[in-house]
Amino acid sequence: MKIMHIADLHIGRTLNQHLLLADQAYVLNKLITEIDNEAIELVIIAGDIYDRALPSKEAVRLFESFIYRINIERGLPVLAVSGNHDGAMRLGYGKDWFKGHQFYLSTAIEDSFTPVTFDDVDFYLIPYIEPAEARLYFEEDNIQTHYDSYRKVVEIINDKRDQSKRAVIISHLFIQGGAETDSERPLSMGAVEYVHQTVFKGFDYVALGHLHHPFAIQSETIFYSGSLMKYSFSEVSQPKGYRLVYIDEEVKSVFVPVEARRDMHVIESDYESVINNSLALSTEDYYQFILSDMRHIKDPMTRLKQVYPNVLELRYAEDIRSEREVEVEVDQRTDMEIIQQFVRKLTDTSLSHNQQQIIERLSKEVNDETH
Amino acid sequence: MKIMHIADLHIGRTLNQHLLLADQAYVLNKLITEIDNEAIELVIIAGDIYDRALPSKEAVRLFESFIYRINIERGLPVLAVSGNHDGAMRLGYGKDWFKGHQFYLSTAIEDSFTPVTFDDVDFYLIPYIEPAEARLYFEEDNIQTHYDSYRKVVEIINDKRDQSKRAVIISHLFIQGGAETDSERPLSMGAVEYVHQTVFKGFDYVALGHLHHPFAIQSETIFYSGSLMKYSFSEVSQPKGYRLVYIDEEVKSVFVPVEARRDMHVIESDYESVINNSLALSTEDYYQFILSDMRHIKDPMTRLKQVYPNVLELRYAEDIRSEREVEVEVDQRTDMEIIQQFVRKLTDTSLSHNQQQIIERLSKEVNDETH
Repeated sequence: MKIMHIADLHIGRTLNQHLLLADQAYVLNKLITEIDNEAIELVIIAGDIYDRALPSKEAVRLFESFIYRINIERGLPVLAVSGNHDGAMRLGYGKDWFKGHQFYLSTAIEDSFTPVTFDDVDFYLIPYIEPAEARLYFEEDNIQTHYDSYRKVVEIINDKRDQSKRAVIISHLFIQGGAETDSERPLSMGAVEYVHQTVFKGFDYVALGHLHHPFAIQSETIFYSGSLMKYSFSEVSQPKGYRLVYIDEEVKSVFVPVEARRDMHVIESDYESVINNSLALSTEDYYQFILSDMRHIKDPMTRLKQVYPNVLELRYAEDIRSEREVEVEVDQRTDMEIIQQFVRKLTDTSLSHNQQQIIERLSKEVNDETH
Repeated sequence: MKIMHIADLHIGRTLNQHLLLADQAYVLNKLITEIDNEAIELVIIAGDIYDRALPSKEAVRLFESFIYRINIERGLPVLAVSGNHDGAMRLGYGKDWFKGHQFYLSTAIEDSFTPVTFDDVDFYLIPYIEPAEARLYFEEDNIQTHYDSYRKVVEIINDKRDQSKRAVIISHLFIQGGAETDSERPLSMGAVEYVHQTVFKGFDYVALGHLHHPFAIQSETIFYSGSLMKYSFSEVSQPKGYRLVYIDEEVKSVFVPVEARRDMHVIESDYESVINNSLALSTEDYYQFILSDMRHIKDPMTRLKQVYPNVLELRYAEDIRSEREVEVEVDQRTDMEIIQQFVRKLTDTSLSHNQQQIIERLSKEVNDETH
């Protein structure tokens, strides 16, 4: 059986106010071509189908037409779970009708326990689960973390499971040892988020979503597909595509890259080199430029857009430098001396008399409050 | 064949900030009981399923569970069209999957032309259509009104139709000769809205939604079911329920009332009679009170709510009177005299000197502009 494993489509996402829907439509179209060329027999979508709980109607239409082409036009089964970005209830609308056509959508804990079986392989679809939701569902106060929640769900699956059959898990979570980027929204506040790999021991393939890097985890059986495309500047050097999974005598998975409509880059350079394109950049791609020698340029973003219409962000190299760490000596010095030293190291200038007065006043206020 | 014809569910509607969802769930539940008791074989929903283009998730859940009970639990076909309150695209999500289970949902012009056939009867599902939408779809500039739009759609249906078979139309529109209440939102601004009855000549039954009164139109073949419940104070004396349609040797339809969770009334009385409930009103029902002798009462709404927790609106009888027409003589009088006369008739007081000055100034400004 040949399976396409995708995740983190984030349909409807914007990056720096730029709507990525046309880019997403482009990649989804490429995936349809891959399905045909590779003779894919089943498609797995491991959560974060939409970017928001209440997607726009354009986003809904794009997802619907993608699934239509796979499931109705080509008659292929689709197995999907909701992610932390999805609104489980809205995403789940219609699922009782969809499954009549082998489009299985798991959006609630109770959807996890009954496997969907193809070619004698059991597929368990576990949606993204909030610990509070699991605590309520199982009526167990000691369920406090994501780990507790998924462990409990998989325990129940294992109790009922026919161990002689091969089994696949589809879910959306942060696995222990995974590598994060900037664009995965934290699963919840305060709690330990990751789920230990041991939870999924004994399963033949674990198809995950949430982390956007397709190689976010090293494991024999647990895999992220990575996101549909680059969704933040911290992902510019990550490959994007899908996992091609073979479940035959043995189970194996390979990552297949899929070309984006426009690539995305972070370019650190000086303004002149970029505006004259001495770097020979593709002018249509998405860019975050971090440029030096730009203080004297009036409205540099407008000028850059004339050359690179899809530049998404412009930052001053000097600002980036100031965000970096600066070491100051703090022993045996007064507050004012420490601040003066810090400012000097950062800007190569000294505090004015007026600035010193303000700092003195604030410093006094803080000291009065703490004593 | 025994059919239930309903329309104008307006799921998620609020009346004077009061969410009617629990009332709607109550009536939908009653309808399920009717379906079982009457051995209904098919359900028609003639538009305005939701009250808004973007319904709340609670509204979506209520509609989904209603259709689930009819279509999946009982296996009955459901034939529905979108109304002017529905967001056609969002409502139509999943319709290609639903029809595999005999849940037919028509939300676009192109859904109108292919009939759904049961027991050798052809059902044509025509959604609510904006003239601009029809003009674009048919590429005909002379389509300007609702009448033009529906006439065009039905012409195409008639051209292809097997005239030997019986045919039913399901749609959502304002038929010529229908009686409006306060709660149907105008279909569009400025255009003539109604559709001539002749458009539907030759059809055996025309199941309509839009007008909330089940007897809004007198016809042998064209029927409104009326709305699910009373949705404005102008509907308090209307019966609410569904139409039971028989399509056998002959076609007939009877209106069947369905009891609401709480009835709705407009009560014109004096404050004392109501607060002491000398009228023996049911205290749980919904009320609009129009009361006299209330000027001396502090916070009358709070007091009334202690007796009638579901009062929705309180109006002063004196304010109502002032909204009524006042006759003034306008021949041979100055503007100021006409205004003075009007104020006297309405309030039994005269204009102050200051008020007269303001009116003189405004009157002068208006005259200067017009001359």
